[in-house]
Amino acid sequence: MRSLIKHVLKRTDPCDELHVAGWVRTRRDSKAFSFLELNDGSCLGNLQIVADAGIPGYEDIAKMSTGASIEVRGRLIPSPAAGQAWEMQAESLKLLGGVPEDYPLQKKGHGPEFLRGIAHLRPRTNLYGAVFRMRSRMAFAVHEFFQKRDFIYVHTPIITASDCEGAGEMFRVTTLPDDKISKAEDDFFGKRAYLTVSGQLEGETFACALSNIYTFGPTFRAENSNTSRHAAEFWMIEPEVAFCDLEGDMDLAEALVKHLVTEALTKSDDDLTIFEKFVDKGLRERLEFVASRPFERISYTDAVELLISSGKKFEYPVAYGLNLQSEHERWLTEEHFKKPVTVFNYPKEIKPFYMRLNDDGKTVTAMDVLVPGIGEIIGGSQREERLDVLLENFKKHDLDPENYSWYADLRKYGSVPHAGFGLGFERLLMFVTGMANIRDVIPFARTPGHCEF
Amino acid sequence: MRSLIKHVLKRTDPCDELHVAGWVRTRRDSKAFSFLELNDGSCLGNLQIVADAGIPGYEDIAKMSTGASIEVRGRLIPSPAAGQAWEMQAESLKLLGGVPEDYPLQKKGHGPEFLRGIAHLRPRTNLYGAVFRMRSRMAFAVHEFFQKRDFIYVHTPIITASDCEGAGEMFRVTTLPDDKISKAEDDFFGKRAYLTVSGQLEGETFACALSNIYTFGPTFRAENSNTSRHAAEFWMIEPEVAFCDLEGDMDLAEALVKHLVTEALTKSDDDLTIFEKFVDKGLRERLEFVASRPFERISYTDAVELLISSGKKFEYPVAYGLNLQSEHERWLTEEHFKKPVTVFNYPKEIKPFYMRLNDDGKTVTAMDVLVPGIGEIIGGSQREERLDVLLENFKKHDLDPENYSWYADLRKYGSVPHAGFGLGFERLLMFVTGMANIRDVIPFARTPGHCEF
Repeated sequence: MRSLIKHVLKRTDPCDELHVAGWVRTRRDSKAFSFLELNDGSCLGNLQIVADAGIPGYEDIAKMSTGASIEVRGRLIPSPAAGQAWEMQAESLKLLGGVPEDYPLQKKGHGPEFLRGIAHLRPRTNLYGAVFRMRSRMAFAVHEFFQKRDFIYVHTPIITASDCEGAGEMFRVTTLPDDKISKAEDDFFGKRAYLTVSGQLEGETFACALSNIYTFGPTFRAENSNTSRHAAEFWMIEPEVAFCDLEGDMDLAEALVKHLVTEALTKSDDDLTIFEKFVDKGLRERLEFVASRPFERISYTDAVELLISSGKKFEYPVAYGLNLQSEHERWLTEEHFKKPVTVFNYPKEIKPFYMRLNDDGKTVTAMDVLVPGIGEIIGGSQREERLDVLLENFKKHDLDPENYSWYADLRKYGSVPHAGFGLGFERLLMFVTGMANIRDVIPFARTPGHCEF
Repeated sequence: MRSLIKHVLKRTDPCDELHVAGWVRTRRDSKAFSFLELNDGSCLGNLQIVADAGIPGYEDIAKMSTGASIEVRGRLIPSPAAGQAWEMQAESLKLLGGVPEDYPLQKKGHGPEFLRGIAHLRPRTNLYGAVFRMRSRMAFAVHEFFQKRDFIYVHTPIITASDCEGAGEMFRVTTLPDDKISKAEDDFFGKRAYLTVSGQLEGETFACALSNIYTFGPTFRAENSNTSRHAAEFWMIEPEVAFCDLEGDMDLAEALVKHLVTEALTKSDDDLTIFEKFVDKGLRERLEFVASRPFERISYTDAVELLISSGKKFEYPVAYGLNLQSEHERWLTEEHFKKPVTVFNYPKEIKPFYMRLNDDGKTVTAMDVLVPGIGEIIGGSQREERLDVLLENFKKHDLDPENYSWYADLRKYGSVPHAGFGLGFERLLMFVTGMANIRDVIPFARTPGHCEF
């Protein structure tokens, strides 16, 4: 039975019959034996193999170069070398797959741009292996967080005929041939269909039946923007809670971010060390800081006043009624409060139709969680649960109430106060790994002009 | 702090300060008090509320009809009524949202077809609430199964320019206006793009770096088939394991199905009871049977011989080289072996290019897991890891090797034996709930002509 190197390295006692397999990272030969560093992707660390000349399989040693796959049987023994508890004394080797000389990962230190071009091979590097193990760990931590709190996971539809934000740039989904493309009534669904930009509206229907729900699935934006923070396809987590107001929503958002950051700190094995070494020296410190302190909460109105009175020169103007820009968000979290900040109660004019109108008649119960280095990581709100106000909002936002009659039904039949938010999963990953480009935390990124693999 | 009814019903001691909220299922009034059955979707069971006339909020009692949402504060006390341990003595009621007379769920016993038309309300019924709680439970059980076994969760891309099966009917994804639709080079990705039919090929790239991986995401088929088992959008689980052969693959598939069925049996709270009562009387017995016995394993060749020698009249012909039809699969599992059956080593002509050729030169290492009542629930194989054989397969299947050069790279650089499979999540849900139509286990089903909500 093959053992994962992850478990081998954590052993507390030696072992006489060990079987491992993986890819050679480096090899050094002397006359009488060879050292091989073996990695199987289960963790950052390699297992050092000592293979004496003459053991079965040693005849292929010259082919066991960087990137080759091998199988090794032997004994695990305490290592005399510094920095490692164990090494493996091989009793037999087996070459599974060699590597021709054009293997692109023979040398270290390739840049991210080059590695994006070989996205099918980059998880074999130390850094990207760590990134994608972290992605998996964080995804599971999301599920654990919600399942422990009795939230029900809902798969909201990917293909949709409605547009949550009322203004998103959407991908069309079709099976029509090129010359019949305008005959939407002949299309697969009998009408024009699109890729979802959010599962919120459908999620609300389930919260208004099962109380606490969350979604976690892919969402899409057909925005033609080539920035380090935008991708056409990304994953989003959207909880929705019945009988919940804005404050409960902010509490939940803060608890979720803290849980995920704590999990990244405690369950990442050694992966954080490589981010600290090559990506972001202050990473662990920043994560510990976020995990341990309450987030600042400030109303949009107060935040705008703070920004104005700061005297700081910003590129974009600051005034009541304007959106906060990234530079404003970063000033609040990085320079002023020096911690995550939840900004709430935004002017209704700059927010979508479904947010609940406050008693002041001017603001809605929106809230954004901003974190240092990233800016907005969560956006949410208490939803408008009053049918008459919602119908009024459809008019103000130029939405056809016909298309949203099912959404209005939630307010017509047994309406309840409810609230929710969206967490961009890739934004979170950038935050916990320090990676600066969204393309580097997605297995195969989709961006304008790029749909390889 | 509001309590979920799920936890209230499981309490072992009474409670003086209880706060619950939910939707009224039924109400009975007498002169001095009212009985309300309250459900909050956290579980199948209702909490019985006793509300004496005259308590605060009682003035709205007439509006607290089926479907209305209310909040209740009071005491939890032992119930004198049969069949329930607890009831709640209300000290105050609060009407949150009433229901007009046209509320579609006032009466019980609506058919599935009617309820599909109000998919935004049907999770408020006992049966569909149970279905979607089970869906969530099973999804989490999938993650637990793989995470405990050190599998890394990979989000393979949804939008893709490649076609895993080489023959799937795919949805096109585009941002081109109708009059420019044929100018694929001007499209968002600079070429034609589609919705994925499987994450397997991309999953393999990660298994060939991180050893054990799994995907769990939406997949799409633009098949114009209106059957009870096909949907255009469904979720699939696809593990991929490096250093694994067909036998290891069959072991993993069997362990996964058993784990999920066991979880359905032990963690479903009361939800199984409603499936047994209204959907499938023998459900629990069948699940226990599957959880406790080893699956039968039989080669395709032997299965064909068994079917021929059975003397049974089938609608579709049985002969070596033909696909097994649903009726054949059901005969094997339901009539002959009376348990799940894993059929392996299929003729290469009826299977895709990526399956590993056996030494007989005739069959490939395919395997299908068949379960009673459903038929095929899992399809998988050991993958062809030999570069020369794979390149030969591209030719035989008329595939342009150019499009698959990245896939071939996995065989060129440190190739390893590896295997995997796909589990259709909705098929699994139909199996553990007894629901006969795939439209009834998906929150908002997408089928030909249907893309509502």
